[in-house]
Amino acid sequence: MIKSRAAIAWAAQRPLEIELVDVEGPKAGEVLLRMVASGVCHTDAYTLSGADPEGIFPAILGHEGGAIVEEVGAGVTSVKPGDHVIPLYTPECGQCKYCLSGKTNLCQAIRATQGKGLMPDGSSRFSLHGKPIYHYMGTSTFSEYTVLPEIAVAKINKAAPLEKVCLLGCGVTTGMGAVLNTAKVEAGATVAIFGLGGIGLSAIIGAVMAGASRIIGIDINPAKFEIARQLGATDTINPLDFDRPIQEVIVELTDGGVDYSFECIGNVKVMRSALECCHKGWGESVIIGVAGAGEEIATRPFQLVTGRVWRGSAFGGVRGRSELPDYVERYLKGEFELDTFITHTMALEDINTAFELMHEGKSIRSVIHF
Amino acid sequence: MIKSRAAIAWAAQRPLEIELVDVEGPKAGEVLLRMVASGVCHTDAYTLSGADPEGIFPAILGHEGGAIVEEVGAGVTSVKPGDHVIPLYTPECGQCKYCLSGKTNLCQAIRATQGKGLMPDGSSRFSLHGKPIYHYMGTSTFSEYTVLPEIAVAKINKAAPLEKVCLLGCGVTTGMGAVLNTAKVEAGATVAIFGLGGIGLSAIIGAVMAGASRIIGIDINPAKFEIARQLGATDTINPLDFDRPIQEVIVELTDGGVDYSFECIGNVKVMRSALECCHKGWGESVIIGVAGAGEEIATRPFQLVTGRVWRGSAFGGVRGRSELPDYVERYLKGEFELDTFITHTMALEDINTAFELMHEGKSIRSVIHF
Repeated sequence: MIKSRAAIAWAAQRPLEIELVDVEGPKAGEVLLRMVASGVCHTDAYTLSGADPEGIFPAILGHEGGAIVEEVGAGVTSVKPGDHVIPLYTPECGQCKYCLSGKTNLCQAIRATQGKGLMPDGSSRFSLHGKPIYHYMGTSTFSEYTVLPEIAVAKINKAAPLEKVCLLGCGVTTGMGAVLNTAKVEAGATVAIFGLGGIGLSAIIGAVMAGASRIIGIDINPAKFEIARQLGATDTINPLDFDRPIQEVIVELTDGGVDYSFECIGNVKVMRSALECCHKGWGESVIIGVAGAGEEIATRPFQLVTGRVWRGSAFGGVRGRSELPDYVERYLKGEFELDTFITHTMALEDINTAFELMHEGKSIRSVIHF
Repeated sequence: MIKSRAAIAWAAQRPLEIELVDVEGPKAGEVLLRMVASGVCHTDAYTLSGADPEGIFPAILGHEGGAIVEEVGAGVTSVKPGDHVIPLYTPECGQCKYCLSGKTNLCQAIRATQGKGLMPDGSSRFSLHGKPIYHYMGTSTFSEYTVLPEIAVAKINKAAPLEKVCLLGCGVTTGMGAVLNTAKVEAGATVAIFGLGGIGLSAIIGAVMAGASRIIGIDINPAKFEIARQLGATDTINPLDFDRPIQEVIVELTDGGVDYSFECIGNVKVMRSALECCHKGWGESVIIGVAGAGEEIATRPFQLVTGRVWRGSAFGGVRGRSELPDYVERYLKGEFELDTFITHTMALEDINTAFELMHEGKSIRSVIHF
């Protein structure tokens, strides 16, 4: 049992509180990590808001971390103390039906317990004054120390700065992977990206890496256009500037529609626009954003019968242990940068400021340095 | 100008009337065909019902033909008199953006005039007592003679019986192609087919050809189950036998859902069931049926974010001139049969009987012999 500074979410809509929690050492097949840095993501805020139907309290939130292996439990062979890792909220066991399918990154090996805020054996490694605190997304990166199953850590190159590549634990990989892994955008393709937050900006980077010929960024907040253009957007459009559906505007602008579109917001109406701005015959739209509970997408089936494809992407379709390390290598080779995303850094003690900046739309990512 | 026996649809919801119409010879780039046989398809009935927003009257319906080239206009090089052809309501010009994309069969070269019931030069080749009669779907196969653009005929092997392979002009190719071309079902895959009419049964044949391990046929009319099983369905399910959503039944039956599903009805609620019975992580659902004007499909975006794909298929994704002749070859090699589909044959003069049999659910296909 070790002591760990951690930010506890006691209940929805309450500020996090910093406590010295007890962390139980790793059991068989588990690893103890020392967190070096963690991004603060919209999904953390979503759960903290109380809107997440799977949200459980009290819990230690956080899922975008960069960490160092401190100790491994019995039977752990793929990592050892000192290894640098990125915690994975989508693990990769390599043995379940999903991993073996070769068609998806959605490993289901520990889905049930993870959804309940517990480790695979059905218990928590966190406690305060003897009372258990729940895990979150299987990662709980808002803690100096955290325990994960071995199948939920990606071992990466030690040369990579953990306080930057932690962003590959969620946001950046989600956007970039949706373009490169899920949609497999080809060189010369046209792309529309709806929503220019961290995910949308990452999708722009992915589109640049793919060699897209035209990258249209769409947002109702024009303050985001400058950075979008810096990262490679060729066009920026504000739907509020038009009195007709934005899909019509884009279809006109692109002589029939884009080859690929990405919804990076979680708004079901925007998801429809994203589909319908795709080119007849082959346009593909990828939903990345997470909609509110119970909300539905809709369109006329003719949109699909005439060749458009509607799909989705989670964690960019990236397999955490087998593919994420390669994203880190590409970062180290200079294929993309991460500094633009990191608008703020702060100590764990200031984590509530990160949520405030996010709500005020003043940050792309705040990164906690432990 | 030649005389041709033809069935004229004077207006919606009226029986067709047989008349001796005048057919103008082929202009440049056009061919005159002598029809040998034509299937009567649900789409003809849909237009005749008045529900088709693109329906134009008076017109000569029919789009599932087998014909012989009678005469060619100036500049026609790909076919000559005596060639056997299947008329194509989806042409293949080989030069438009769509044909050149390599990603779709939806050639748009003559879309605008075809939708108006006219030849590409904006006029009709059919008239009666000097008044024009409109073309239909660019094919008008309910006429002994008809004129089509050269780009809208597929030259096929003369060894193939036109009174059978005419079904490849629409229904059979639509179902079979959706499985083989659009979805590219792999050997061993599990498949669910919603609606066991001509399209659904063709999809079953396609699934058998693809080597699917399990083929589930779904229909609310159990009278269709015997033929579905004869053609290769391994399971048949009647949604009316269950008091919960059919997608739940199928997910349970298949340990998580099917790899591919096909909607062959045109019912937007069934389209949702077809998507949601697909396996998390990779299941793909293909919409083939044509929904009523203005109707919409809906689902929770979570269905897509967790890996399902929603797409559509028109004419089975098959390129008419470059790929349809190969389907005829596969028929000649005995890879599939067509006799099961042809429940009735009749003369053009009895064509209204074909519509009656269809409405009463007593036929799969009636084929008109000229």
